[in-house]
Amino acid sequence: MSETPGALTVRQYVTLILEGKATSEKLVSGCLARIDSSDGDIGAWVHLNRETAISQATSCDESRKRGLPTGSLQGIPVGIKDIFDTVDYPTERGTPIYAGRRPDADCAVVEKLREAGAVIPGKTVTSELAWMHPAETKNPHSVLHTPGGSSSGSAAAVAAGHVPLAIGSQTGGSTIRPASFCGIYGFKPSRGIISRRGVFKTSSSLDQVGLFGQDLGDVALLADALGGYDATDKTSYLAPRPRMLDGYLADVPIEPIFAWLDLPYADRFSPATVEGCDELREALGSQVERIDAPRFFGELIECHKIIYDYEIYQNLALERTNHWDQLSETAKSGLLEAGNRTQSEYQEAIAMMGSANQWFGQFFNDYDAIITPSANGEAPRLSESTTGDPICCTVWTLCGLPCISMPLLAGEDGLPIGVQFVAGFNEDDRLLRTSRWLLNFLNSCQN
Amino acid sequence: MSETPGALTVRQYVTLILEGKATSEKLVSGCLARIDSSDGDIGAWVHLNRETAISQATSCDESRKRGLPTGSLQGIPVGIKDIFDTVDYPTERGTPIYAGRRPDADCAVVEKLREAGAVIPGKTVTSELAWMHPAETKNPHSVLHTPGGSSSGSAAAVAAGHVPLAIGSQTGGSTIRPASFCGIYGFKPSRGIISRRGVFKTSSSLDQVGLFGQDLGDVALLADALGGYDATDKTSYLAPRPRMLDGYLADVPIEPIFAWLDLPYADRFSPATVEGCDELREALGSQVERIDAPRFFGELIECHKIIYDYEIYQNLALERTNHWDQLSETAKSGLLEAGNRTQSEYQEAIAMMGSANQWFGQFFNDYDAIITPSANGEAPRLSESTTGDPICCTVWTLCGLPCISMPLLAGEDGLPIGVQFVAGFNEDDRLLRTSRWLLNFLNSCQN
Repeated sequence: MSETPGALTVRQYVTLILEGKATSEKLVSGCLARIDSSDGDIGAWVHLNRETAISQATSCDESRKRGLPTGSLQGIPVGIKDIFDTVDYPTERGTPIYAGRRPDADCAVVEKLREAGAVIPGKTVTSELAWMHPAETKNPHSVLHTPGGSSSGSAAAVAAGHVPLAIGSQTGGSTIRPASFCGIYGFKPSRGIISRRGVFKTSSSLDQVGLFGQDLGDVALLADALGGYDATDKTSYLAPRPRMLDGYLADVPIEPIFAWLDLPYADRFSPATVEGCDELREALGSQVERIDAPRFFGELIECHKIIYDYEIYQNLALERTNHWDQLSETAKSGLLEAGNRTQSEYQEAIAMMGSANQWFGQFFNDYDAIITPSANGEAPRLSESTTGDPICCTVWTLCGLPCISMPLLAGEDGLPIGVQFVAGFNEDDRLLRTSRWLLNFLNSCQN
Repeated sequence: MSETPGALTVRQYVTLILEGKATSEKLVSGCLARIDSSDGDIGAWVHLNRETAISQATSCDESRKRGLPTGSLQGIPVGIKDIFDTVDYPTERGTPIYAGRRPDADCAVVEKLREAGAVIPGKTVTSELAWMHPAETKNPHSVLHTPGGSSSGSAAAVAAGHVPLAIGSQTGGSTIRPASFCGIYGFKPSRGIISRRGVFKTSSSLDQVGLFGQDLGDVALLADALGGYDATDKTSYLAPRPRMLDGYLADVPIEPIFAWLDLPYADRFSPATVEGCDELREALGSQVERIDAPRFFGELIECHKIIYDYEIYQNLALERTNHWDQLSETAKSGLLEAGNRTQSEYQEAIAMMGSANQWFGQFFNDYDAIITPSANGEAPRLSESTTGDPICCTVWTLCGLPCISMPLLAGEDGLPIGVQFVAGFNEDDRLLRTSRWLLNFLNSCQN
């Protein structure tokens, strides 16, 4: 049996581990070996402790052997973006300001992972404070290109086969865009499903947890393990969560109807993106309706920027005040600009976000999902000093809608481009069902 | 379709509700009607809000109709002992000291219930501060008898068909004993599975959450909904929970082996209890091994008392200091006695508890479960001014072992007596599997 992630799904691994036909120790050792052989080039990991990883894996195997309770991710290694607090590893948030910082408590996501029996081999690289300034991580498909950001290391680690699953975050497009650039599945569940307790705050209204995987069903399994109410997170809600894996496994009641929106930023899409999406629409035929995006989409993009600016300026008060010299020039100029936002601008933007949510509530009565690019095109070159343009994610992130990026297209340089699927708030199960239907549909087209 | 709990299991109701063939509104209305018709005699409820209950039920039905996420207890009413904090209802802890007290936040258990889609129709009567002094609640099988305590109202409400499920607690025998007296299923999961955040503290080491139901599988379903790590509860552990319903539904790999311990307090058992247990052992034949309880069981009972005394004296500091006159005579004399415990006695008792846990860890390598009475006999008469003797639960509660009471016997006055099944720590799934096997076995004996 191969121990390479990608060879088997996480669900298959968990079954084998629970049946005693595979061990977490072997799976994690295989992951560590692949990290050793390729992370020198890629730089996906910032903290890695082989002993901790193997000892967690061995302990998972021991628990199973002794008949103790097992979890839905028993023995599966999951990479964690370095803005998520962990007791076992430093959490340095991609900045020298927090060099050597050791949290006293795990974040909610890591608690949930441990409850699900997962193994945490280490922390993945984040751009500075999960913001704009790129980290050193390289795209596993081409070391001359960025993996995207700010969840650079998590996306690269999954794409390189270091781990089958990883955790990132998204405030603009920090999960969907790196998933697109790295040719893997990215999933940002609806706002409020997963607690952000113990995650570095940039924008309290917009920050969300994002997931990466080599397989869509595995990402659904991961989302099920992470969901849950947390009174300490103001976006967390007290009601049942969508059942992610059930959604993924469900058959569609009728063939889904997609919406393609002609967007105000479509002129930024690369020719390969435009062509790939044209082909996809053509294959889907009458199952896609092509419509103009409403005019207020332009305003929504502006609202997102206002809210992000206003809140990151507040949330980075400590870094601004006490550590200005340790910030990158990118962060400094970003903060200088952000500081100019007024409170009334901000309140208007928050109100506009509310109206947009209502609009989407109506919109998704008629459509199962929006089809839209995950990113403008392939990953930019590292020499461009950017992790890429998040514009393709802005509106959906603002509204807290569930988004999935699937690695369906290729660009001019042969690098991956993702296609993004967006559904109504809290209809993550339906989005997973629709996305799986689409994967099957595309498979059947190829045969 | 009947709307009487007991006619259908909760699992069946949830299926019907999710299929749109039943509504939570009808189910909850039926419960409220039964409460109206019989709670004047029984007195199981201390706070009940018909409007809140119906509005929660209607909202569950609406969510389902609109295709929003649903939970494993969608639309099911669950009664909550009045020591568990709730935002929607006062939480008065069975004492005038806390008359009108309105918590700011729901306890962890209520949060989990809301996440599972349950409805909270109100709060059930607890004995004073979940301790010894009886409340006014009567046993639904005979209004001259106690329902047991301290979870008096929760057990009585389930037994009377007011609600199909209810939440209680157990520090001595406050779940298993009332379940026994009221002829229903009681389940105290392993210590640390369910968070006690927002529950009145009597003994921080011994307090545990307990569950009541008319059906064992439903109680397993409820336990699945409630389990989860909580860093704010010092007994909560960060590892996978046993899968309760899966355990209940699983077939036994081989016929289980039970242990019957001859206990130092067996002289307190009523003749009907002794006879019923004799018959059960006879029916099981070579599947029960009868052995002497180890000598240190006597010490364990003393350890339990020391820990309980020491910790309740500390935890009731405020009530002792500021509200002495509002305490019952029972509580006053209990506190006067409890205050005499020394710190060294306490530390020795804690150490002894640790040794006992190790001993049981070994013991359950050879046995699937201990069979033992849930209570000495039938419910005492109200005129005796006691909720009954908790001795049958003391050792297992001390060690945090999972315990199930099943309504298998009847006493001299025709009142129910429960039989208790106890398994190894965190082997709650195995305990449920074994208990269900036993129910099937007894059914097959009757046919």
